[in-house]
Amino acid sequence: MEFFETVEKRYTHKERFLNEPVPREHLEAIAHAGLAAPSGCNAQSVSLIIIDDPSVLDKLRGIATSAGLDTVRAVIAVMTDPTTQTNDTNYEKEDYSAAVENMLLAATALGYASVWLDGILIDRKAQQEYLRVLGAPESFHLPTILPIGKPDGAGMRRIKRPYSERLSYNQFKF
Amino acid sequence: MEFFETVEKRYTHKERFLNEPVPREHLEAIAHAGLAAPSGCNAQSVSLIIIDDPSVLDKLRGIATSAGLDTVRAVIAVMTDPTTQTNDTNYEKEDYSAAVENMLLAATALGYASVWLDGILIDRKAQQEYLRVLGAPESFHLPTILPIGKPDGAGMRRIKRPYSERLSYNQFKF
Repeated sequence: MEFFETVEKRYTHKERFLNEPVPREHLEAIAHAGLAAPSGCNAQSVSLIIIDDPSVLDKLRGIATSAGLDTVRAVIAVMTDPTTQTNDTNYEKEDYSAAVENMLLAATALGYASVWLDGILIDRKAQQEYLRVLGAPESFHLPTILPIGKPDGAGMRRIKRPYSERLSYNQFKF
Repeated sequence: MEFFETVEKRYTHKERFLNEPVPREHLEAIAHAGLAAPSGCNAQSVSLIIIDDPSVLDKLRGIATSAGLDTVRAVIAVMTDPTTQTNDTNYEKEDYSAAVENMLLAATALGYASVWLDGILIDRKAQQEYLRVLGAPESFHLPTILPIGKPDGAGMRRIKRPYSERLSYNQFKF
């Protein structure tokens, strides 16, 4: 899909997904787009786990679930390794956010919908339970998981303020 | 440009830019892609200033400059408004990072190079001097500015670890 069309079509899908498996090659293409994102000082703090095994998905849902996650057949868990960062310049949030945005767009380009799920992971305990089920170091951060699937219906679009209220030229005008 | 090709071609350009103006319509297309990015709770904390007036650029460079910024003819300043956030869920970093990634990709899709410049803005004093020159509220955050221009030469590509070292399936494997 053309880049600007992809940006335009991306939206936050909090509704149901179709009960269809997602081919591994698509999940990999999405994950690779995420790993291709830039990272602060090129530290590459982000690592990903593609989860499409129904028993693992069920275990995760047993800890905490959310609209979207409850019906989807595949997710990508987005982790950061704090040991790649320094106290002075910690780019974990920037790194994972750029990776997530690449993946949301990649999913869109391949005809899928997704949602930047983090509400259920604000609680560090839920994060650590997820990490334990996934066999990942409990020192890692798991700020976000991305459900990936074909949307069951059009999904609601959030309304944005006109861009003219957020963009000015050479001087701030608001 | 096709989405996955855009992701592949994006790189961090820290070298010189050609001394050519960038058409406003291209700068706007890039900025609009940034504003189309998702934001936490749809708070739309990000606002942008396109800067292509040479006298404003010179003033900014007089405060702090960096490789790339010193030769480029246009930049996009990326600001966040902290008042759109709550103490419990502050998504400023996620919001601007997703917007920046969209803009880096949009610049690539239009044949430009860019760089996620933040080193010169880690110092909050430099940020506030920039905000003052731009006429923006000093309470805003200005974490990043993006030079946008045609690269003068190929530019160095940073080396990434193989994706297989950062991606696993259903269980963390490293």
